[in-house]
Amino acid sequence: MAINFKRFFKRLEDINNLKNKSFEKININRIALTLDDKIARDKIIIWMKNLNLSIKIDNIGNIFGFYNFKKNTKPILLGSHIDTVRNAGRFDGSLGVIGALEVLEALIKKNVTNKPIGIAIFTNEEGVRFTPDMMGSWSFTKRENINKIYKIKDNNNITIKDALKKIKYLGKEKQLFFKPRMFLELHIEQGPILDIEKKNIGIVKGVQAITWLKVVLFGKSNHAGTTPMSNRRDPIKVFGEVSSYINSFKSDRKQQMITIGSLNIEPNQVNVIANKIEFTLDIRNPNDKKLVQFENNLNKKIKELCFANNIKYKVDKLVNFPSVKFDKKINKVIINKSKKLKYTYLELFSGAGHDAQMLANICPTSMIFVPSEKGISHDSKENTKKSDIKKGLNLLYNVTKELLKE
Amino acid sequence: MAINFKRFFKRLEDINNLKNKSFEKININRIALTLDDKIARDKIIIWMKNLNLSIKIDNIGNIFGFYNFKKNTKPILLGSHIDTVRNAGRFDGSLGVIGALEVLEALIKKNVTNKPIGIAIFTNEEGVRFTPDMMGSWSFTKRENINKIYKIKDNNNITIKDALKKIKYLGKEKQLFFKPRMFLELHIEQGPILDIEKKNIGIVKGVQAITWLKVVLFGKSNHAGTTPMSNRRDPIKVFGEVSSYINSFKSDRKQQMITIGSLNIEPNQVNVIANKIEFTLDIRNPNDKKLVQFENNLNKKIKELCFANNIKYKVDKLVNFPSVKFDKKINKVIINKSKKLKYTYLELFSGAGHDAQMLANICPTSMIFVPSEKGISHDSKENTKKSDIKKGLNLLYNVTKELLKE
Repeated sequence: MAINFKRFFKRLEDINNLKNKSFEKININRIALTLDDKIARDKIIIWMKNLNLSIKIDNIGNIFGFYNFKKNTKPILLGSHIDTVRNAGRFDGSLGVIGALEVLEALIKKNVTNKPIGIAIFTNEEGVRFTPDMMGSWSFTKRENINKIYKIKDNNNITIKDALKKIKYLGKEKQLFFKPRMFLELHIEQGPILDIEKKNIGIVKGVQAITWLKVVLFGKSNHAGTTPMSNRRDPIKVFGEVSSYINSFKSDRKQQMITIGSLNIEPNQVNVIANKIEFTLDIRNPNDKKLVQFENNLNKKIKELCFANNIKYKVDKLVNFPSVKFDKKINKVIINKSKKLKYTYLELFSGAGHDAQMLANICPTSMIFVPSEKGISHDSKENTKKSDIKKGLNLLYNVTKELLKE
Repeated sequence: MAINFKRFFKRLEDINNLKNKSFEKININRIALTLDDKIARDKIIIWMKNLNLSIKIDNIGNIFGFYNFKKNTKPILLGSHIDTVRNAGRFDGSLGVIGALEVLEALIKKNVTNKPIGIAIFTNEEGVRFTPDMMGSWSFTKRENINKIYKIKDNNNITIKDALKKIKYLGKEKQLFFKPRMFLELHIEQGPILDIEKKNIGIVKGVQAITWLKVVLFGKSNHAGTTPMSNRRDPIKVFGEVSSYINSFKSDRKQQMITIGSLNIEPNQVNVIANKIEFTLDIRNPNDKKLVQFENNLNKKIKELCFANNIKYKVDKLVNFPSVKFDKKINKVIINKSKKLKYTYLELFSGAGHDAQMLANICPTSMIFVPSEKGISHDSKENTKKSDIKKGLNLLYNVTKELLKE
């Protein structure tokens, strides 16, 4: 077999600092543009240089490593991200980056091709410190002007540009400084479907639409023991009803996902009625129209509840990405190769957002999923069986080899 | 008139650092046992020394200033607290302390009495940094062993004993080192009733029972975009239903107060289902049995909701004070004096907890309320009309004078 799994797992262990750690102690916090992110970037660049890849860094800190890339040629691009959420697992993102490096190394050492091929490591896919998520691929594919992106700040008022400078990854290459021939991303599913259906591989038809809203409800602070219930303007009351409304859709809207993930109240004291509650809504649906319809109904409901309870409010849209369909030709190659390798597979939509959905705007794109045990993700208990990781990697190698022939 | 209102307002301005501040800029944060608390304590002790009062500090930092107090005599005690909540108004607590000082000064300078009389400043009435609230009067009246109280810690793991040492208010006097003949506390209502009913004075029949609960719901963190709604263990869902349940009692339980004042979730990220939510419940009722009944129903409801949603939980009781009835004889004197002074008045229960409810355990006790504009309290917009403050002070003077005759 062309792939060196030992090397792959050693590199993964290395960037995640997993040496001598028991599974229970895994706790990865490689938030984008922190020192931990920089350390991992530096390591991967050394590995890429050892392969004689030419390194390019663009103006949002995306790292590219090219083999045989000349001007006016279009490389096949493989890759993903290495930033993580807080208390993350080891595979989310890193699998697609270290996996791409391994595939490239195997292709080069086997002298498979002279065609241009590249690896991409996209900045800030998770959006933990800087919003929106998928920021690196969003910028590379020119979804937004770079100077507007530079103004985005974290909670400590540090701009993305200053954070890039600080870790020395503010690169010179412009947005879309080259056009990939196609893009392919290997990733864990981050959901339970492949695990439940006992399949090795997910063929990804596309990514569902995502909207993030931030809702702020403004009430009136007052003493918890002296203010009659009927005289209150308590934003918690409205929040509770919004939460109940959201969860009432559980049974009849199977594909609608809604999550209240972040929640903060002021002044946050036992004996004081809150004057303000801020919360986020993560809304996803494979069908753009249904998502908009749900969002409209939700907005209407919030308006009604706030009016009835004398609560002022505002709703800001933090993120809004439409659904994306992946390339059918690439998926056909993935299906054929899976069959040939006797890997079981399933076609599905991605519930999570991925850099691939940005790349789909500029070139034929698809993804390969491997199963997540119990569907656990964005948590230190996230895991994929070693045998499934190996199958995913081997499939990525074989599909890339096939695509290079075209 | 015996009372020097100018001196009173100057002192209030002085301890609240209000000099040259417009009403909009008032923002008092004199949290118990912080430097701000110490500065105010030091100022008041100087004023008490100027009156030749003998100063005693007990082992929880309560400050007492006595006039003509000898061993085995029982002084009439006036007082309240000077610690505040965050972003507080100027009168909550301070009115009863600076008011008591003013009444004592007037009585002394008018040579009204030779009988012993004292002022009390009780430590940590608000319970913001250290729980429970009313800690100083709770300790003085021996509701709990001092060594148990010393172990109480703030969120930074600092014990109450170390905090007292740090501001140099760990005194030598033991719990209940003297027995007051009676206790009288002047305080703002902190509720809207006197303001709505347009009365000058509140005659306080007692204090409603208070229970503070801390509820923790444990769910399962997971990816917001890939975890089907039916596979989730989201504690926010249960929280929303608990909030809706609580607020459904609004109409049919007029005297039941319930507040969710404090709320924290983990990991608090837009795209991650929460694994934990912690919130507090402040429950009050003038009727002890009804409070217990409500608490039992609530516990049952939480249990049912957690079971139905596969959520683990725990409920801790942070505070539990039964209702208190104040002294009818003292209240009769307050009513008679109000009539004589032609102040309008109303008999009512206190919605808030007060040091007086602790003192009621050891001596005849009552309170005088003055109106709070719009019922606003525990907020920088808390206010009482100057004319009402003057009436309250004048009434405290006249009632104390009358009680000294007995």
